Amino acid sequence: MEARLTAVTLGVADVPRAVAFYGALGLTPKMQMEDVAFLPLNGAVLCLYRDLALDAGVEMEGRKPGLCAIAHNVRERLDVDTVLEDARAAGAAITREAHDADWGGRSGYFADPDGHLWEVAWNPGWPLDEAGRVHL
Amino acid sequence: MEARLTAVTLGVADVPRAVAFYGALGLTPKMQMEDVAFLPLNGAVLCLYRDLALDAGVEMEGRKPGLCAIAHNVRERLDVDTVLEDARAAGAAITREAHDADWGGRSGYFADPDGHLWEVAWNPGWPLDEAGRVHL
Repeated sequence: MEARLTAVTLGVADVPRAVAFYGALGLTPKMQMEDVAFLPLNGAVLCLYRDLALDAGVEMEGRKPGLCAIAHNVRERLDVDTVLEDARAAGAAITREAHDADWGGRSGYFADPDGHLWEVAWNPGWPLDEAGRVHL
Repeated sequence: MEARLTAVTLGVADVPRAVAFYGALGLTPKMQMEDVAFLPLNGAVLCLYRDLALDAGVEMEGRKPGLCAIAHNVRERLDVDTVLEDARAAGAAITREAHDADWGGRSGYFADPDGHLWEVAWNPGWPLDEAGRVHL
């Protein structure tokens, strides 16, 4: 796993409400759909996502604050599998195995020993620059 | 608030255990103390912190996964107060008011409408580069 953070995904109950809140603070979505919005953050992305718990394969019920997942984007499709196997070997719980995602990439999630979630993702629509950053 | 993420802080029960886990994945701390470790992440910082709940002014009891806070570092000491006031005006709950921190900077925390924590911080030891990134 390279030392890289590409996005932070916040599980939110209501995407338009979350977008309005961050909009009042000057953060504007580059893309917004019913269930998710993407806000550029200086080489990383803030994702406001309604279905994070489902996507990550974890329970969400009654959680306040909602879940948070750090994304680690990789350069090649099968790097997702490699990083997840490395995480498993290091003692992580794999909450969702590597799989081809309906948005066209590949993804999986692990939880660290304290339960913090990381998504490992390959997204052909989010190329990494030389320094490993994502610019929407 | 500028579009910037400078760090992600994960509340962890045991800093050496967390450091060992991330170390097995190839992420090495640049600095480690009893209660906190700082791992460089390509222009941002991953903080593994034992006392995040206390520092953020929120309850932690029984939480699993532990808390997570996104840090937004600012260039000037009193920008902390300005960003927190903007967040309050946007409807955020201020979980800890702006204060001079014992590590020599200034800090405060707000929670977004879903309860996700942001720390707003001025840290004279973490200068931002022109692009607003932190390199430890």
